[in-house]
Amino acid sequence: MSLVVQKFGGSSVADAESIKRVAKRIAEYKKLGHDVVVVVSAMGDTTDELIDLAEQVSPVPPARELDMLLTAGERISMAVLAMAIANLGFRAQSFTGSQAGVITDEAFGKARIIDVTPGRIQQAIAEGNIAIVAGFQGVSQDTKNITTLGRGGSDTTAVALAAALDADVCEIYTDVDGVFTADPRIVPAASRINVISYEEMMEMAASGAKVLMLRCVEYARRYRVPVHVRSSFSQRPGTWVTDAPVPEEFATDPLAPQELEEDTTMEQAIISGVAHDRSEAKVTIVGVPDVPGKAADIFRTVAAEEIDIDMIVQNVSTREQGLTDISFTLPKTDGARALKALEDRKQAIGFGQVQYDDQIGKLSVVGAGMRSHPGVTATLFEALSKAGVNIDMISTSEIRISVVTRADLLDQAVRAAHTAYGLDSEEGEAVVYGGTGR
Amino acid sequence: MSLVVQKFGGSSVADAESIKRVAKRIAEYKKLGHDVVVVVSAMGDTTDELIDLAEQVSPVPPARELDMLLTAGERISMAVLAMAIANLGFRAQSFTGSQAGVITDEAFGKARIIDVTPGRIQQAIAEGNIAIVAGFQGVSQDTKNITTLGRGGSDTTAVALAAALDADVCEIYTDVDGVFTADPRIVPAASRINVISYEEMMEMAASGAKVLMLRCVEYARRYRVPVHVRSSFSQRPGTWVTDAPVPEEFATDPLAPQELEEDTTMEQAIISGVAHDRSEAKVTIVGVPDVPGKAADIFRTVAAEEIDIDMIVQNVSTREQGLTDISFTLPKTDGARALKALEDRKQAIGFGQVQYDDQIGKLSVVGAGMRSHPGVTATLFEALSKAGVNIDMISTSEIRISVVTRADLLDQAVRAAHTAYGLDSEEGEAVVYGGTGR
Repeated sequence: MSLVVQKFGGSSVADAESIKRVAKRIAEYKKLGHDVVVVVSAMGDTTDELIDLAEQVSPVPPARELDMLLTAGERISMAVLAMAIANLGFRAQSFTGSQAGVITDEAFGKARIIDVTPGRIQQAIAEGNIAIVAGFQGVSQDTKNITTLGRGGSDTTAVALAAALDADVCEIYTDVDGVFTADPRIVPAASRINVISYEEMMEMAASGAKVLMLRCVEYARRYRVPVHVRSSFSQRPGTWVTDAPVPEEFATDPLAPQELEEDTTMEQAIISGVAHDRSEAKVTIVGVPDVPGKAADIFRTVAAEEIDIDMIVQNVSTREQGLTDISFTLPKTDGARALKALEDRKQAIGFGQVQYDDQIGKLSVVGAGMRSHPGVTATLFEALSKAGVNIDMISTSEIRISVVTRADLLDQAVRAAHTAYGLDSEEGEAVVYGGTGR
Repeated sequence: MSLVVQKFGGSSVADAESIKRVAKRIAEYKKLGHDVVVVVSAMGDTTDELIDLAEQVSPVPPARELDMLLTAGERISMAVLAMAIANLGFRAQSFTGSQAGVITDEAFGKARIIDVTPGRIQQAIAEGNIAIVAGFQGVSQDTKNITTLGRGGSDTTAVALAAALDADVCEIYTDVDGVFTADPRIVPAASRINVISYEEMMEMAASGAKVLMLRCVEYARRYRVPVHVRSSFSQRPGTWVTDAPVPEEFATDPLAPQELEEDTTMEQAIISGVAHDRSEAKVTIVGVPDVPGKAADIFRTVAAEEIDIDMIVQNVSTREQGLTDISFTLPKTDGARALKALEDRKQAIGFGQVQYDDQIGKLSVVGAGMRSHPGVTATLFEALSKAGVNIDMISTSEIRISVVTRADLLDQAVRAAHTAYGLDSEEGEAVVYGGTGR
């Protein structure tokens, strides 16, 4: 018997009608003989409404209490979903994150899953129930306080449960059809990716693709959970995130018409997709004394604020001898804090000044094929040059190239790259790379 | 150091503004140096809204899931209240029923508290917190499922916690000023009772007084918890339910102006109050064979449906020899079920027919002074007779007389009794009883 974990996001359970539709979908899998565990987010805008309520009584609500409050959202959706399933004649029981054994650290609002001990879920399944589990929440290991996992936390709950239960597949139902070669709002010719490796998906997520959060993909990769990202509003197949062959019995939907079946063997595309990110800003420290330890000083100052730095560039200053300029990117939301921390240390470190630029965009090209196909970088630079887009910073990994451009040029940069790598769905064929180097 | 448990009902925490007001009230007690544990109901209409939502997906939602759903209501109010208190500069932590150690049986929707193990609450208090506990909910002893206690359950939570914590007082904040000598909507001259014994309050609650539920008063009596029922919308003292002297340090409110202080010594009123109840119906079984075992048959039939019977009258039938009529009252909501069960057994028991009358009202006069003051019953009958109210059924306890009247005469019956016992506040003096018998 197969076990499937299905996760439904807030837009899939926005109201009573949506919940009934989702219940029917879940019941179809149970009818086929699968064991089913469902992870559910809060209904529609519930979480935002609860945050509003909190802000009405306290400008900075205590984190423990905010987590206690927000977890009410999934408690509602999971119980109502269990009722809707029971109304179709199937047994269903709902469980909070704590009851489902989702053990976390105590970082309220952004807790990390430490362990999953799903004894009650296994018992519920063994008794013939469809188990409904609250996403986004857990209980802290030592103090037994209620915690939330932060943005995208329900996906992580689903993957973590799938790992702990050794599920055959984890289906993530969302409001889009899967992962696309680029954001279709920017690139109309973008197409859905059938299959993508964990590694590529991690790079996509880290580069701004919003369908799956990085932490969730990391978890899936670590425990080799096949993840199927798909729309809860259609029966079409979505995007498989896996390094192994797609499990055949879950390749098609029980509700789907026959003609929707498609080939889901692992493709060997060189470039999987083009991601973009508008959430970062660039900080440039001008006139840093070019002596050992100064760069370390700067990054230690920023790290002390618990700010994640993304790209870093260091140049010999063109202005004065013995001085250098250091640029890095960071989330815009951390910008003000970083600037303050750096200004406070200006005398001690001895740099000239700090410049802040929040009008930047980041474009990333991701593809496992890069490893074996030189020329990928050259293709990007040529395409951007032809499109009149200047490159401000560059960073690369084994399977990714990222560049920083002006924010107002980002959309045309993404379109140019998408076309250059042959990803436009009307063309349908990949370019051939030659030459040496990347 | 004193420990006070305070319970706030849904109307006291209906919105963010009310919650802030309640937070201020709670903080005043903490400022005085008391340890404070707060029990809170769901905000305003939350519970009704959740029930509506459940009914949209399932006509008969599974009881386990309905309890899971409804407990989300207190989770929201308790977390928001804790935030509001924290915003005033006090430490506050919220706890679910389960976290607070409220252990129940597994009768979903009407669970009974079996035990309270408030270790986490004690720890929170010891650490200087105001502990906020979700009312109305607990966790089942064996299966660890979430349960609700049913109507008035938050009051019971408060009294049970007060007992387990050995609190000095349990304050029940509600939207009325306390317990009145009669419902002020019916008897404008009704006045607030300053002090009432547990026994009298139990009779009042069982007779239809809605301020406190019977189960809550039973709990308070068993553990000798002094209960102070009062309004959350004023600083006036309310009604003390206790057999002991009122604890002096809680007799007045820290926010109350001096002139509101009043004498709260135990009064020796003969009659404490007049309660009424419109929720019952009368069933009459006509033509029951007057042989042993037939009455038992009838009540076993009704008991098998788990229906609570209140008053019972058996008369020799005036119609035929060897037959008798049996009448009893029961909650209107159980009427249809009782009738069906009785009709099903009509042949086996061999009675003539069943009559159903839901146009009845019950009036009860409660007072510990009845024991030592004969003539109380005669006063009632005379008053009702003068008011033109016929008595249909009668039942009595040591400290209570109840009569059933026509529903449309109930209001004038209540007014007549209230006046006859000298309870009208403008008269202000009790009548003197004489003669023999009650």
